[in-house]
Amino acid sequence: MTTGVRRRMGVEERRDQLISVALGLFSHRAPEDVSIDEIAEAAGISRPLVYHYFPGKQSLYEAALGRAADELAARFVEPHEGPLGSRLLRVMGRFFDFVDEHGPGFSALMRGGPAVGSSRTSAMINGVRQSAYEQIVVHLGLVTPAPRMELVIRSWISLAESTALQWLDGKRIPRAELERQLVHDFAALAAVSAAYDEETAETLRAILAAEPIDGPFAELAARLFALVPGDA
Amino acid sequence: MTTGVRRRMGVEERRDQLISVALGLFSHRAPEDVSIDEIAEAAGISRPLVYHYFPGKQSLYEAALGRAADELAARFVEPHEGPLGSRLLRVMGRFFDFVDEHGPGFSALMRGGPAVGSSRTSAMINGVRQSAYEQIVVHLGLVTPAPRMELVIRSWISLAESTALQWLDGKRIPRAELERQLVHDFAALAAVSAAYDEETAETLRAILAAEPIDGPFAELAARLFALVPGDA
Repeated sequence: MTTGVRRRMGVEERRDQLISVALGLFSHRAPEDVSIDEIAEAAGISRPLVYHYFPGKQSLYEAALGRAADELAARFVEPHEGPLGSRLLRVMGRFFDFVDEHGPGFSALMRGGPAVGSSRTSAMINGVRQSAYEQIVVHLGLVTPAPRMELVIRSWISLAESTALQWLDGKRIPRAELERQLVHDFAALAAVSAAYDEETAETLRAILAAEPIDGPFAELAARLFALVPGDA
Repeated sequence: MTTGVRRRMGVEERRDQLISVALGLFSHRAPEDVSIDEIAEAAGISRPLVYHYFPGKQSLYEAALGRAADELAARFVEPHEGPLGSRLLRVMGRFFDFVDEHGPGFSALMRGGPAVGSSRTSAMINGVRQSAYEQIVVHLGLVTPAPRMELVIRSWISLAESTALQWLDGKRIPRAELERQLVHDFAALAAVSAAYDEETAETLRAILAAEPIDGPFAELAARLFALVPGDA
């Protein structure tokens, strides 16, 4: 498949096009299974011209990854309105959209290995995690979370990653259920930590007080009650 | 520091000693900061002799990692007696012992990067995860868990990893608290999933029924109750 572009592109435009084409290919296969020849063919240019813009596959992979990282970080942006549970649920929907669109590439990247591991790729992954972390901190109305609250947020981000990776491996559970479950997991992890830490307890009480009676958090509380032995 | 061994060691014995020495060094620093010269010196042998046993640093690193993986997997073994909460708590204690003993090496490995990422290191990490998974399945009295129960167990293993990594980064929260919190997290993740899945609910009810009133799960339930708004 070529893009069919015949007029002469400017340097930035050509780089941009190559990154888009590469991202498309790297999203659907592990990086070791994508060749420069394929990228050249998909972009409708010669192999030497690809090398004119990028010194090699690793640098093109990293550029594509940078594009994907920016795209994912943009999906975390959510208006600061309404109950927190619904905000998190919308973000989870966009996160799973992203994971679905870039599935095999996302798996290959997150599972690591020689073809994807470099200090630059690690830095990009950590950049996206940090951006998710900062978004959540602001949504929680915090400025500098105490260590236990920070642990809850970062643990939850890592849980979202591992849940998405497990989902990609066979898609045996409907993603809508997992998106909802992750919102519940956030409340559950915060509730566990709240037992040890007054700041987390206070944050959680403020969240729960603002939740609608039919929202995901209230639903979770009702379901937890039902599981406790001896509860009538 | 040399081991002071002067008699001639057999091939297997020498390999074993080199792996032990390397594991000691790789536990306390990232692999890129450990040199073959240092390993040779710590083992009290010449640099060429190290190369006689191992073709290079990567192969020695992988051998040390294999030793560490076996050691960690052995710590997951726990008698099938008593309430599940206490069993998990003892395993978490041994897991954090391991993490504490191999801190910088554990961080470097789990955070990935070019010096540690190879298909063999990834396979070893996944082997340890799989062994943790299989242990838990048996403790839960399951044979082949349904996808949702499998997700709970694997998610919790990944949560234990990320909690340990965050703990290593500054040790700002006492580890005993985190060990207990992770046991609570297991119950919390299972409770969330139980809302969607009868097998998980049944497993969780069986666990909770066997828990003592002062065990970690009962404590969690009481603490969760206290957080629900409008609960008197």
